[in-house]
Amino acid sequence: MRFHILTLFPKIFESFLSQSLLEKALKRKLIRIDLVDIRDYSPDVHRTCDDRPYGGGPGMVMKPEPIALALDRILNNAEKKPFVVSLGPGGELFTQKTARELSLKSELVLLCGRYEGIDQRVLDLYCDLELSIGDYVLGGGEVPAMAVIEAVARLVPGFLGERDSLTEDSFSSGLLEHPQYTRPRVFRGLSVPEALLSGNHQEIELYRKNESLRRTRERRPDLLDPDKT
Amino acid sequence: MRFHILTLFPKIFESFLSQSLLEKALKRKLIRIDLVDIRDYSPDVHRTCDDRPYGGGPGMVMKPEPIALALDRILNNAEKKPFVVSLGPGGELFTQKTARELSLKSELVLLCGRYEGIDQRVLDLYCDLELSIGDYVLGGGEVPAMAVIEAVARLVPGFLGERDSLTEDSFSSGLLEHPQYTRPRVFRGLSVPEALLSGNHQEIELYRKNESLRRTRERRPDLLDPDKT
Repeated sequence: MRFHILTLFPKIFESFLSQSLLEKALKRKLIRIDLVDIRDYSPDVHRTCDDRPYGGGPGMVMKPEPIALALDRILNNAEKKPFVVSLGPGGELFTQKTARELSLKSELVLLCGRYEGIDQRVLDLYCDLELSIGDYVLGGGEVPAMAVIEAVARLVPGFLGERDSLTEDSFSSGLLEHPQYTRPRVFRGLSVPEALLSGNHQEIELYRKNESLRRTRERRPDLLDPDKT
Repeated sequence: MRFHILTLFPKIFESFLSQSLLEKALKRKLIRIDLVDIRDYSPDVHRTCDDRPYGGGPGMVMKPEPIALALDRILNNAEKKPFVVSLGPGGELFTQKTARELSLKSELVLLCGRYEGIDQRVLDLYCDLELSIGDYVLGGGEVPAMAVIEAVARLVPGFLGERDSLTEDSFSSGLLEHPQYTRPRVFRGLSVPEALLSGNHQEIELYRKNESLRRTRERRPDLLDPDKT
């Protein structure tokens, strides 16, 4: 699977891409990630990529031309049209369902918004999906792009060491994960719950299921609401 | 404001911290960020930080001792007890409201979970809040920690160049942002909407408000639901 990241700050990604499972997957060529500096496509000697908004208001807007030129180059070199995702606060909410859908694409473009956003016409012309990773204001689409890459890449077959971890994670079941415990059996006066030491698989399963439910009810009642969208 | 990041992969953060507004804020000492490698606190010669879960199941669990020792050191050196946040899929949803609350703390610890999670006892003993940045499965709490740092740091007075950008962003109004346009007036056959060229402030405001509403209705009807939690 191939990712193209279009950003004004390509350096932000460097150490993110050089660590952990992502680096291994890049080395094993399970995934490929190309960083594209949008500034390289500015037709202007000053490499300008932003300008003031029509209609006034604070801040700057990302100009359409450099982004369009960068996208044209990617689209012209691709065999099959890559799926283009823009990352900004005005998008649909990114969920595990979206991650699964994106993991089936062979080529994905992640366009990182900055400032007050991207000129709408370039989004209208090129974008298949606008995504937001959550209801909080960030400095730009770079951290969201990392979240999308991590969530999508781990669904690529062969990425994870143990296949099992894929199915039991939170959101696969629709409930939050149960608490986890490891050695020592007593830590600073706190013991591991008896059920987990019982060796009785049914008892362990029941304990974990109850803890998942309790935690979901406390922290994320919205996940238990049958009316949720 | 001071952040401590506890992680098994401190290098992931290096280039993130060296770019954009964050680097400027670090240089100007508006914020301070300390990276703590949890592995440095493993009492073990192999610097082991994970072990198998009690009760069985796939994957590994982060051991309590190294995290507790790292936290003890931070807490012992702090004048006022820092606020400790753990980042993992089982937490409450991070929102702009939480970002505002966290921006009022003078010292924040961000504990990045990995693998199947952190031994529950260290969370029970030290953690003030468990946060998830959204309903998707990531490789660890490192990208969520970046999201929290970006969202919180930009609320620190002096971080943003223009104060205005703070108030008009998405989620401050409860609606998604309206589309943005900049020069040229016509781009690849698409013109900037007439209302934005009118010079009439009332007309511009009305156009933007309507576009915000339309977009919110299409992409995030949950934000318009009065029953939402």
